Amino acid sequence: MNAIRGLGFRFAGSGIALPRTAIASTEIDARIGRDAGWTEANFQIANRYWAREDETSSSLGAAAGLAALDAAHWNAADIDVLISACGVMEQPIPGNAALLQRRLGIGASGIAAFDVNATCLSFLVALDALLMGMAVGKWRRGLIVSVDLASAALDFAAPEASAIFGDGAAAVAIEAGGPSHMLACRLATYGDHSTLCRLESGGTRMRPDDDLDAFLAAAKFRMDGPALFAATAKRFPRFLRDLLSDSGVPLDTIDTIIPHQASAAALEHLKRSVLGGHAKTLDIFREHGNQIAASMPHALHVARERGLTAPDSHSLLIGSSAGVSLGGAVIRW
Amino acid sequence: MNAIRGLGFRFAGSGIALPRTAIASTEIDARIGRDAGWTEANFQIANRYWAREDETSSSLGAAAGLAALDAAHWNAADIDVLISACGVMEQPIPGNAALLQRRLGIGASGIAAFDVNATCLSFLVALDALLMGMAVGKWRRGLIVSVDLASAALDFAAPEASAIFGDGAAAVAIEAGGPSHMLACRLATYGDHSTLCRLESGGTRMRPDDDLDAFLAAAKFRMDGPALFAATAKRFPRFLRDLLSDSGVPLDTIDTIIPHQASAAALEHLKRSVLGGHAKTLDIFREHGNQIAASMPHALHVARERGLTAPDSHSLLIGSSAGVSLGGAVIRW
Repeated sequence: MNAIRGLGFRFAGSGIALPRTAIASTEIDARIGRDAGWTEANFQIANRYWAREDETSSSLGAAAGLAALDAAHWNAADIDVLISACGVMEQPIPGNAALLQRRLGIGASGIAAFDVNATCLSFLVALDALLMGMAVGKWRRGLIVSVDLASAALDFAAPEASAIFGDGAAAVAIEAGGPSHMLACRLATYGDHSTLCRLESGGTRMRPDDDLDAFLAAAKFRMDGPALFAATAKRFPRFLRDLLSDSGVPLDTIDTIIPHQASAAALEHLKRSVLGGHAKTLDIFREHGNQIAASMPHALHVARERGLTAPDSHSLLIGSSAGVSLGGAVIRW
Repeated sequence: MNAIRGLGFRFAGSGIALPRTAIASTEIDARIGRDAGWTEANFQIANRYWAREDETSSSLGAAAGLAALDAAHWNAADIDVLISACGVMEQPIPGNAALLQRRLGIGASGIAAFDVNATCLSFLVALDALLMGMAVGKWRRGLIVSVDLASAALDFAAPEASAIFGDGAAAVAIEAGGPSHMLACRLATYGDHSTLCRLESGGTRMRPDDDLDAFLAAAKFRMDGPALFAATAKRFPRFLRDLLSDSGVPLDTIDTIIPHQASAAALEHLKRSVLGGHAKTLDIFREHGNQIAASMPHALHVARERGLTAPDSHSLLIGSSAGVSLGGAVIRW
């Protein structure tokens, strides 16, 4: 039971932005010295986009934000709050929220802007926070922007932790009052697995002045894929059962599953775990890879474009993240 | 008007943690080639603490968290949510929330853990989010942990952006239901000033592989103090007026002002701006400096220790952050 279900909201708009440069998996093959086709055969990914030169987290995030505002027929100044929901920020200080606010042309407005972070589940936490703020009357119109440039920290010596990642941005505009309800939202964190998926340099612990070589070595993303899969898979059935129980909606009522796009293997596991999962699950992995925090709102944007968020239909948002966390929400549109 | 005032809460406990190593301002004088007494005379700071060796953001943050849990007579497993509210994280992936959860001994619990970030105002945003979640029935007991290790990125060629910073951690335990009410909470962001206070390396934009020298140069905190002061000071009177108006509490009803400890100059400006400000304002700057996100909850902890959060008394939490943002809250205890 969750009192937040009392608040109706309207999914007013959404948008995405992609870097200009598409990187085919054959380019990855060449880079890592494999035969053409190896990456696609192993990871079921054909393409991803990488930011180049002038494309930054804030420029791509703002482009997605403006697309969402345009879809909502809002001006940027119409929003009460901007929540940035990213995995790795453009820079530590200030965070993406302030940079995005400036890029959206509302940098003199005083409109509240802050960041939330749960790595790949950041969008889910931001959506929950936004709807709670609307439920208590704090905000009326909000914009959530997720953007991640995974390409900034990939180590191609580890194909399974590099070949599957792409860059991108997605944004969602939400208005208080309307037909849609978040029926349940859950986040379950297991910090004991915090080393399974990590990027260690870029914060307060690893310091380039202390040991530059160690700093540079730890400036690449590391992932123990099999252990991560095991840690999340074993907890997934109970997590999903609890989430659906919270929502009061049985699994067969879910029309569309909008997952984080962790990997082809993770998506396949999800589809097999859920009755009818192959037909219901939105899968954009082959063309975009894992866009970290941007994956879930990107998939939600695609769902909206395809008419899969029609009134009274039900969506399940679900995924896992570094942490390790499992997260999910049930929405009746 | 803010519907969140309907929820009562209880300030169940608080705690702080400091690094072992106290750094007197005379040590800074020696480091930057000034006469003994120069730093204290110029910045009104006598001491700060710096993390060394094994002291990390998560170890100090967990120590503060355990102190707050102890004060609340809770076990870590009693909480429903852990919100990390820091400026710069220990590492980009996963964020401080997961690392703190592990250090608190609840890394196998599944207790929700995520990060919010508004640099020096992160605690305020986290407290607001926690109370919103309690208002909608989502959480019953929450722990907020703020920790920052400013010493990781200081450039002593710029004394005004280095001599005033200290490391530290603070945590607050909050329970739904109780005598206390947040009467108002505001965050006003002005992203057009995002360059005035910045740390550019450690995210997706500055990349050591592209240009290591540029990366290392931008790995130091930069602050244009006078411009930052001007940007916040000119907006402060209206911000405070709006915040108090939201709260329904006149300024002379405020018993204690619990500010972010930005600098001696900023604290003096605050005290002068508010009738009776010198007597009401909690000032721990001389002994601790600016602890970024940990400053405000540290000051709140001191207020609690001194009996300044007694039932029916009123506190004003207020500060500014990189962004630039102004933030504040009015609480009736």
